[in-house]
This record gives sequence, C-alpha cells and structure tokens, in this order.
Amino acid sequence: MAEAIGLGLAARGRSAPNPNVGCVIVSDGEIVGRGATQPGGRPHAEAVALAEAGARSKGATLFTSLEPCAHDSERGPACSDLMVEAAPARVIVALQDPDPRTAGQGIERLKAAGITVDVGCGAAAAAESMAGYLTRMTFGRPRITLKLALSIDGKIAMPSGTSKWISGEDARAHVHLERAHTDMILVGRGTYLADAPRLDVRLPGLEDWSPRRALLTRGDAVDGWETLHSPQDVYRLHDVNDLLVEGGSATATAFLAEDLVDRILIYRAPIIVGEGKSSFGYVGLEGIADAHGRWRAGDGRALGVDRLEVYERVRES
Amino acid sequence: MAEAIGLGLAARGRSAPNPNVGCVIVSDGEIVGRGATQPGGRPHAEAVALAEAGARSKGATLFTSLEPCAHDSERGPACSDLMVEAAPARVIVALQDPDPRTAGQGIERLKAAGITVDVGCGAAAAAESMAGYLTRMTFGRPRITLKLALSIDGKIAMPSGTSKWISGEDARAHVHLERAHTDMILVGRGTYLADAPRLDVRLPGLEDWSPRRALLTRGDAVDGWETLHSPQDVYRLHDVNDLLVEGGSATATAFLAEDLVDRILIYRAPIIVGEGKSSFGYVGLEGIADAHGRWRAGDGRALGVDRLEVYERVRES
Repeated sequence: MAEAIGLGLAARGRSAPNPNVGCVIVSDGEIVGRGATQPGGRPHAEAVALAEAGARSKGATLFTSLEPCAHDSERGPACSDLMVEAAPARVIVALQDPDPRTAGQGIERLKAAGITVDVGCGAAAAAESMAGYLTRMTFGRPRITLKLALSIDGKIAMPSGTSKWISGEDARAHVHLERAHTDMILVGRGTYLADAPRLDVRLPGLEDWSPRRALLTRGDAVDGWETLHSPQDVYRLHDVNDLLVEGGSATATAFLAEDLVDRILIYRAPIIVGEGKSSFGYVGLEGIADAHGRWRAGDGRALGVDRLEVYERVRES
Repeated sequence: MAEAIGLGLAARGRSAPNPNVGCVIVSDGEIVGRGATQPGGRPHAEAVALAEAGARSKGATLFTSLEPCAHDSERGPACSDLMVEAAPARVIVALQDPDPRTAGQGIERLKAAGITVDVGCGAAAAAESMAGYLTRMTFGRPRITLKLALSIDGKIAMPSGTSKWISGEDARAHVHLERAHTDMILVGRGTYLADAPRLDVRLPGLEDWSPRRALLTRGDAVDGWETLHSPQDVYRLHDVNDLLVEGGSATATAFLAEDLVDRILIYRAPIIVGEGKSSFGYVGLEGIADAHGRWRAGDGRALGVDRLEVYERVRES
C-alpha cells in the first residue's frame, strides 16, 4: 500500500479534478502492475495498473489508495467494473471514496462479484496524500496552502519592500516542488504588479508541471491569469484540489481572516530583519487566547541554512 | 569526561565569576571523587573531587573540563598544587584555561611533577558548557542570550501590549530553567513598569537559583535591581558569565543593534497574531544581504505545542 500511496503522491497537482490515486497489483509475490491517476484525471490509476498487468490480474491482489469508482463517465468505464472483469482475488482499499457517485458502491460491486475486499489499510497516509481532493469533497473548495519566506522575527521584506532573498536556494527549490504538486497558484494584485512573478516550476524535468495561475483582484482580469474577486471565490473552483497562495501580505491576511487556510508553509531563514514588513495585518483576533488551538505544528525540516515549518489548521471535518 | 562536563553544566549560573567546571576522579575503574565549582566560585571543582577521593587520588585518573588553576588566591590554594600533592597518575583536561593567570601554567606544573597530562578530550562540549566564562575571557563581557516568546509571524504581543500568554506552560518552565542557569537577567524599563516582573526561578528545588536582576534604563536605579545605562555597560560586568535579556522589544533591539547578542532563544508558539507588536525595531540593516550569515540555527526542540529555536551568533573569536 505504501507503494500505491507513493505513486498517488507523485501525481499530486496534475490529477484534478480527480483524486491523485495510486494502484499496485501483486501476483505471486511480484508487482505486475502499477498506476497513478494520469494528467487531467484520466485514465484512473486502477485502469493503468490493470492494463499493465493484463491477464496476470486474475487471482492477484490489488492495492489502491482510494475506492475504485462506481460511475461510468464519457471519459471511460468505471474502475470497479474493470476490476470485476479482471477478477483479482483480493482488493485492498485504503480509503472509501467520499464522492457521492461512488461512496461505498465501488466496494459493494467488487464484493458482489465474489472479490475479497479489505478497507482501511494505510488510511491515514492515503488521506494525507489526497488531502486536496478530500478537502474539496468535505468543504466544497480546494485545500488552501499559504506559503511564506520569513525571518526569525516574522518579516517578509525590508521597509522598502525588498524581499530578495529572505530564504536560500534549497528553500526556493522546495517551493518549486510545492508548485509542481499544486493545481493552482494565487497571488494578490500588489505582488503581481511589483514582481510580475512567473510562478512556474523551474526544476529539471518538472517544467511541464507549472500550475494554473490566479490573481486575487477586484479589478480587471489579466491575460493568462484566472481571477478571484475575493477569497470566497475558492468555492467556485470545482476543478482545483490544491491551491497555493504565495502572497503578498494583504492576500495572505485576507485568506486568514476568512479562515480559508488549511496549511501554512514557513520557510524560516536564520536572519533578523528588525524594522520591515510584517507577515500579516489584522486577522480578526480579539485576544491572544483566540489565537491558540487553531494550528498544529507538523513535521519541520532543515533546507540548507533555512528551516521549513509546517502548520496544519485544526478543524472538525 | 562527559560526566565531568555534566557536573560543570549543572553549576552554570552559580559559579561566577569562576568558570563552571566539573571534575571526576577514577581509580581502579570506579569513580572515587566528583566535583563542580561551588556557588560563588569556591571551592573549585577539582578541590571538591580531590577531597572526596582522599588517599584514593594517588595513582588515579582525573578528568576535568578545564585546566586546573595555577594561581593561589586568598580564597584557596591553586588546584594544580592540590593535584601535585594528591599525585594522580594521569590528568585529562578538556580545555586549557584562557585566564592569563593560568593559561597553560597549570598543565606545566602537573607535567613537571611527573603526572601524565592529556589535553583536548571533549573540548567542544566543554567549551559549550562554559560558553559564558569563555565569552567573558575572549570579549571582556558576559555571554548574552536574548529570549523571546513569539508567534509564527514574529509578534511578541497584541496591539494593546498583552502578551499573556504567547507560549505555553512547558515553554515557560524552560525559561525558568534558563534563568536558573544564568547569572543575571536584564529587562528594559518599559517591561519593568508594565509587568513588574519577578524574574525569579519558580521550579521546585531551584528557588534559590534566582539570578541577579538588572534594569536597562537611563533613569534612576531601582531598589533590588542593578542598573545598566546602555548595552555597552555589559563590559563593566566582570563577575557575570551569562546574561539573559528578557525584553521588551526596545531593549532587545538595542542589544541587537550594538551586536551584543550571542544567542537567541525563540519560544515559537503555533499561533498567528497578525496585527500586533513586532519583535524588534531598526537593528541597523542596510539590506537583506547584510542580515545573512550572522546567525546559525542550533538544536531546536518541541516544548509542548511550542518549539524552542536556538540561534547562535557566528563570530570570529
């Protein structure tokens, strides 16, 4: 299952509107088929793995990070039907699909065909790997990640606005990797005008993974950029699993004030800026007590001299 | 040697003006004497360990984290003379003492008496354990540690000034431990007036370890508090190895602007404050490039939901 989840993880940022699923088929102790959701969402992971395994699927064990879909589409047959046809002996599913068109029906279809189905193996890791899709299914909007490069004292720039560079090369390379694994990047109009950012992925081999670009502005649309007029417009993004908000301060503050941030990535440089531009403005706090209990520190790691801090919003889902 | 350094570490904050040395004597594979510098600096670690070992010192191996002193004092005889009298076969010294009254003469005196002496075992750990004393010997002032409780976005308080509490109980207990292991704590007049802080050690068993208190102020002295009129007055603190600067922002900024901070302890709470009081004001930077290369991130650790970040000033000594 770890292998299946890993295949799915590698497809993050290219599978939307579909989930980034991974699938592995094992026959006689050997992996005979591997698949992940393909760019744009089709073919599905299971279809890819079954095609690779061919006749060896029969009697095999199939691992998939998400329940196979139960609905036909103009883009292809339902994976649960493909599986019934391929006749593996056993299917191990990490997570049930919350999509109401499937939601347990895929599993039922396999069981009805006499296939043994186990659900729940690796569920937590699978949920983390598909957090964007699951957020969209639960809240009707993408998972929103806010990224900032900050000094020890939480500044994003000098008083002049200069922010090149707070963080070092390793941290910036990591940002490009995050971009590759998101479906859309958003900046505010101020950042757009000041920096004209390309927001593309500048990592060897991943140049084609540059995500869609969006601008938060009350003004006119800009060529090559999608437009959000307010943070609430994320509820209109039905084909985006993961949205990365890259700045600047006013945009970040607007998303935080509307409680529309699920994850924060801080690239913390070991520098003190002192007088400079703060990360955020007023985010709606009445007092310090209000600030507590909202964020949980996740795994951090060193990136050159900088450190990546990850914070996850604590929510009842 | 690790045991000797550990004994010395436990004496940090009480040995000034003397170094916090640790000493262990081993005879026939058994520890027969242990010592650390006693409160106020006397007796020395070696004298304590030799007194415990008594006649068993003869022919034994003695580990000490700092070269034994070579100068008599009205407060006791030189440790190197005590050692010659006790006649261990071998003395293992982590670091040579930079005090010009010793500076290799303690080692020479042992060698002249026919004792085998090895220098350098555990030198880095010993230097870290006595960083305050070594800073004073090198720069003529205490090692200065700046402590702050900060939010993710580097704020120290709400716009109203309220800062109770940014960090949690575990972090606050750690602050009290740091206080116990410092010789003097300093705050600015603003913090003194606003908070009337006790700055004492509120940890069971360490209540007597509360350090001296100092106020940074251009105004009058306050009863029970020593006075520094400017950060440069640290060069007058000849009997302080470790100085802990606890705030507020103006005081911290003044020390940073004069490059008089050697170590920063950030207790980082997983909260976002947004609009609020920044950690520091203008610290003298011309641009972001100036800010780099000054601080090295040391070992961090989780303290409850908070995280301790340690930064050390990179200096040529």
